[in-house]
Amino acid sequence: MIFYYAPKTVSVASHIALEEAAANYETQRLDFSVTEQQSEDYLRVNPKGRVPALVTDQGIITETPAILVFIAQSYPEAKLAPLDDPFKFAKLQEFNNYLCATVHVAHAHKIRGNRWVDDDAAMEAMKKKVPQTMSECFELIENEMFVGPWVLGNDYSVCDCYVFTISSWLASDSVDINNFPRVAEHNTRMREKASVQKVLAIHGL
Amino acid sequence: MIFYYAPKTVSVASHIALEEAAANYETQRLDFSVTEQQSEDYLRVNPKGRVPALVTDQGIITETPAILVFIAQSYPEAKLAPLDDPFKFAKLQEFNNYLCATVHVAHAHKIRGNRWVDDDAAMEAMKKKVPQTMSECFELIENEMFVGPWVLGNDYSVCDCYVFTISSWLASDSVDINNFPRVAEHNTRMREKASVQKVLAIHGL
Repeated sequence: MIFYYAPKTVSVASHIALEEAAANYETQRLDFSVTEQQSEDYLRVNPKGRVPALVTDQGIITETPAILVFIAQSYPEAKLAPLDDPFKFAKLQEFNNYLCATVHVAHAHKIRGNRWVDDDAAMEAMKKKVPQTMSECFELIENEMFVGPWVLGNDYSVCDCYVFTISSWLASDSVDINNFPRVAEHNTRMREKASVQKVLAIHGL
Repeated sequence: MIFYYAPKTVSVASHIALEEAAANYETQRLDFSVTEQQSEDYLRVNPKGRVPALVTDQGIITETPAILVFIAQSYPEAKLAPLDDPFKFAKLQEFNNYLCATVHVAHAHKIRGNRWVDDDAAMEAMKKKVPQTMSECFELIENEMFVGPWVLGNDYSVCDCYVFTISSWLASDSVDINNFPRVAEHNTRMREKASVQKVLAIHGL
């Protein structure tokens, strides 16, 4: 497999999962500073011009929740998802979808405002609200969604890779992660894992 | 099971899937015009204050992509997802996640702008761009993602319920669905299904 990523982006989550699955993969690094994700070559891999993308023998997969579950299903021995219980699996999906469609979207209003508006004043208005929206998201995660000690309970899963990645963005969104003690402790605990340390080093984090 | 929905929202997608699975379920209708989704009672069901939510014997599931896959896994005889092929399943997930995290989010900037900004001018700027962003999303679906005759190819899936629901919003976003001939033909074909007709009638559509 070939894993397309850009440093310090949401691709960190899938990168950690690939490491934890001991997957057989190569990497292709994209440079967002020269908008390489919009290059002709990369748009042939992912017409959406986003990362991550995972090239497999059968075809290309994009979207973080899809890639995370594909890794979990392809390497069941790594036990990265409750694959045999539809309800538990749905809770994993629910969590990942909240990160993808609400939390990541809230964060994106800081520097990707041009996705949704064209004028500068509106983009400034968006930036201004990001600390509030990200705080509200993580209050919900802390109080309603995080079971503990891992996201889904006693069993580690790809949800842990994903929320770790996004909770690591809180400081840059002017939100103190310590406002959410369980999320903060989880972030610290994730950093003790060899897989996480390896990926953070690759991403210059 | 109890299915919480509000008429004319994204809950249409899961509602169609429940019908097609011949699932055993009751419904609870929420009235968005009196903000019932934010009522104390409903926030106990879904603290996010959104629809849909599916109450099962094991607990509550939210987020459309999670609910759709849960229905497909719980009623495998309805063949609503490629459950035995991780790559094909990943393509289903990729498609649903694009709808959830990009297309639905683009649409939400028309009337849910207060999620991301506080001032009226910025909300107007958001509204203005919705026809463009929704057009770009459906160009990508039409040209890069839709395999045909169904979303994933020869086999019908929950992706069809989901994209039908969202492509039906295009007119209200001032986008002509006929700009995307395959999506338009799919929307028409979906309306011939008894399950779809039943759900549209319930939703007053």
